[in-house]
Order: sequence, then structure tokens, then C-alpha cells
Amino acid sequence: MSSAPLNDLSRLCIHTITTKPWSIEEAAENYSAEGVRGITVWRDALSGRDIRKTGDMLRQNGLSVVSLCRGGFFPSKEPLKRDMAIDDNRRAIDEAFKLGANLIVLVCGADPSQPLEDSRTQIYEGISEILADAESAGVKLAIEPLHPMYADTRSAINTIAQANDLAEKINSPFVGVAVDVYHLWWDPQLENEIKRCGEHQHLMAFHICDWKSPTVDLLNDRGLMGEGCIPIRKIRSWVEASGFNGFIEVEIFSNIYWKQEQSEFLKKIIAAYRIHA
Amino acid sequence: MSSAPLNDLSRLCIHTITTKPWSIEEAAENYSAEGVRGITVWRDALSGRDIRKTGDMLRQNGLSVVSLCRGGFFPSKEPLKRDMAIDDNRRAIDEAFKLGANLIVLVCGADPSQPLEDSRTQIYEGISEILADAESAGVKLAIEPLHPMYADTRSAINTIAQANDLAEKINSPFVGVAVDVYHLWWDPQLENEIKRCGEHQHLMAFHICDWKSPTVDLLNDRGLMGEGCIPIRKIRSWVEASGFNGFIEVEIFSNIYWKQEQSEFLKKIIAAYRIHA
Repeated sequence: MSSAPLNDLSRLCIHTITTKPWSIEEAAENYSAEGVRGITVWRDALSGRDIRKTGDMLRQNGLSVVSLCRGGFFPSKEPLKRDMAIDDNRRAIDEAFKLGANLIVLVCGADPSQPLEDSRTQIYEGISEILADAESAGVKLAIEPLHPMYADTRSAINTIAQANDLAEKINSPFVGVAVDVYHLWWDPQLENEIKRCGEHQHLMAFHICDWKSPTVDLLNDRGLMGEGCIPIRKIRSWVEASGFNGFIEVEIFSNIYWKQEQSEFLKKIIAAYRIHA
Repeated sequence: MSSAPLNDLSRLCIHTITTKPWSIEEAAENYSAEGVRGITVWRDALSGRDIRKTGDMLRQNGLSVVSLCRGGFFPSKEPLKRDMAIDDNRRAIDEAFKLGANLIVLVCGADPSQPLEDSRTQIYEGISEILADAESAGVKLAIEPLHPMYADTRSAINTIAQANDLAEKINSPFVGVAVDVYHLWWDPQLENEIKRCGEHQHLMAFHICDWKSPTVDLLNDRGLMGEGCIPIRKIRSWVEASGFNGFIEVEIFSNIYWKQEQSEFLKKIIAAYRIHA
């Protein structure tokens, strides 16, 4: 049983990187004009700006600041780099606090020069080390399991089962899981693990896009909803059955769409959201 | 604990596709001259040839015919295409019999226009349908779980756990699993599932290559052993602990290596095998 179509845009959130050619100010104005109600801010979009004022600007445009992307990248064979990652994650927590975002998405990281098990241990240690800062700032941390094709350098957490294990081990109301259909759609355990995630109140974010056939680039060839083979609405039904009713976040990295006129692309996103999300 | 280095080439097998620019006759002559003892034959390499004579030619070159690649591709939304796939798998069994290969590797297939669950059901049905033919011919079938990045069109079987489940459900001495490090290295359950595979006498083939960082092509950018981040020797130790002591098959799809002089590439394969396999 899939969920019913989304009849309004009240749960639609867009990631700033989805419309990368736009500044955050342009994104805010355009999203708002089209009725989008949420925004997830990538940190590069804040460069050179007063973060508190930027958060106010977003809210003045009627946008909820859903999350800050991204923290993480904890593992390294070199202790100095691990320390630098901790510092950077503390900065991310500070930025999220100033922006008024109560969630940071963690792309956990991996170092191909060491065993995956070491990277996984360092991810646990890294999250544990920043946890008190996150709690103090009132900012939650969502572990995002990444597709196994990113296990070399982007994340050693590659299934939702692993993310659930990790969140349950850390066992804090400030640490949960981000479910992104692009990373997880292939997993035969997905429905069960989404259920488990919900039972522990760990499901903190839901990201959508599509998997194109063929996919010609490992990073920047994501599809608009409906262009690929991901059963987005079915997965949404599992996410909602688990108790999640927050924003549905459109996160598309696409060399193709970034080259198009972004106002037209935004219209396509909204149409695809109504039909396929 | 990793296994010891391989001090001789007695277990080295190479897939014909690894040295795609060579005909099967050139491959046989060159592999043999360098001391390689096994060959896995891709079906395209047999095109236009008498298959029995080709098998004899391989054995005259001192090569064991380890397996025929590949059967599978069972799923389709269209019943007619599923029937055609069954016919093609029966032809593959006949080819393996004539060639003197007692194993066919199954790349199980997927159809992005239908749910993964349907593709998975059709894979079970397809293998069940050709099983009697495989038994009559004395040819085993190895289910090869493919990396999740191929779940759209190449295989809906994406973890060794799924392959184990499927082989156990079919429950025939003629159906097992092919372990390829490229597809499976990221899986936190890999060691456990290799053990389980061995306990059921299901581990029938072991394929190696490496995962490069960055990987720039989803299909044809595999690395030579040692060029990437896969702990090949550690995985081999798990495979051997499970009871497998057959050929170690080098299967590399690489636009880069296919452009090089293949005699030089073969020397690199052998050197990499001794150091990293």
C-alpha cells in the first residue's frame, strides 16, 4: 500500500544544492514564490554571510529551516585529521544553532587507506565526541546511510541497518537517522529497518530523488522523481507508517539540471513532487 | 588474520573479458605461456567457434575451464522476454556442457519498470525452471550478488545474504553463490555471510579485482588488485575458512586496461596477484 499523493506543498522542502546555481537569497525568494515551505541549507550556501540574518531571511520568506547539510567525515587514518573533523563538526553545530536549524545531516565519511571497520569505529567515536555540543545547542544529528558505491571515501555507513545499530548504540534523543531513497531503495531490508528506525524514534529526515537507468555519473546524475526506478511513494508509506510526518526533502545532484534555467527546474520539481512523491 | 600470499599461479584464473582485446585463442596461448592455470570464458568469446573444439584447445593449453559467464537476466515485466531468457539460459547450459565447464555464473538481472520484489520472484522462478537442465548437463549455477549500483538493470540480488537465502530456498547441490569482492566488499555482514555460504556448501566461485578511488565509470573502471581499497586478502581468508580452495578468478572490466598492450597487462595481473591477492 502506497501513501496517497501529496495534494499541497506544505511538506515540500528543497535542498539548496538542488538549485546550486542560485544563491541562498535567490533560492529563498523563488522557493517561497512557488509555495515551497521548507529549505535545507548546505553549508557552502552560507559562505560570507551573517548566519543569524540568513536564518531570519529564510523565515521571512515563509520557509522552515529543516536541516543543515552537512556534518560528518569523521574517519581518517591520521589522528590530526580526525581532530580537525571534530572541530569542523563543532562549527557546523554552531552554524545550525545560529541559522535556527535543529538538525544536522551527517555524511559520516570513510578513509580508503584503512579498513572499513576502523572508519566505522571512528564514526562512532566522532559522533560521541560532539554529542554534548549538539545537546547544548539543541541540534539533533541524523546519520545518513550512503549508497555502497560511496563506501570508499564518503561513508562507511552503507545500510539503514548499520545506521540503526549506530543510533541505538549511541542511544541519545539527539542522534537519529536520515532516510534517503537514493541510497537505500535497493535494500531488501528497507521496510523492516524503517519500521525499526521509527520504533526507536530515530527517523529524523526523509530525502527523495530518483535513480536513472542508465546512471552515467556516480555523484551528479540523480534523477527528478519519476525519472527512475525508485518506488518513492511506497517508501514514503513505510516512512509515514513508522511515525514520521515531517518535511519531504528534494535533494538532487545533477549536472544536467544545474545547467538548466533554475526557475523552470523548480517548476519541474514541484510537478514531479505532486505526481511521484 | 589474512591468508598467506599466493606463492604460485596454480589457483590463478582469468576471465576472457579481462583481456577483451584478445581472441580466446590469443588469451589461451598467452595465459598458458605465463603460467596461468584457469580460464573463465565469456560467451561472446565463443562466437563463431566450435565450442567442443574450443574447450579442447583450452585444455591443450593447460587451462582448466573454470566457468562460463554468464547466464541469468531472468526478470522482465513482459512474459515473452522471460521465456526468451529461459531459452537463452538453456543455451548457456548447453554451451557450458560442450565447453567442459561445470559452472555457469548467473548475473540474475532486473527490470527497472517493475518492483524489485517482482524481479526477485522471477529470478527464483527462472533458476527453478532451468534447474533440471543444469542437473542433466552436470553444470552448476552460481548466483552472483551484484553491487547495489546495478540493482536497476543488472541484478536484483544485491547482497550475499540475498544470494544465500535464494540458494538455500532452491536447495539443490547444483545451485550456489559466486563471491566477487568488487560487489560485496562494503557489506558489514560479509564475513558472516561467507561463513554461512560455506556451511551450506554453496560457495562455488571467487572473483577478484579492486575498487578505485575515485571510480569514474559505473561499469568499466575496475582496478587491478592493489590499486584500490578492497581488502582482497582478508576476504580470501574468509572464503578459504569457509572451505573454498578453488580458483581465484581475476575479472576486471576496464576501459583503461583494455587500451593497453594486453601482454603487458597480463604481466601486471600476475604481479598484482602475487602481491595483493
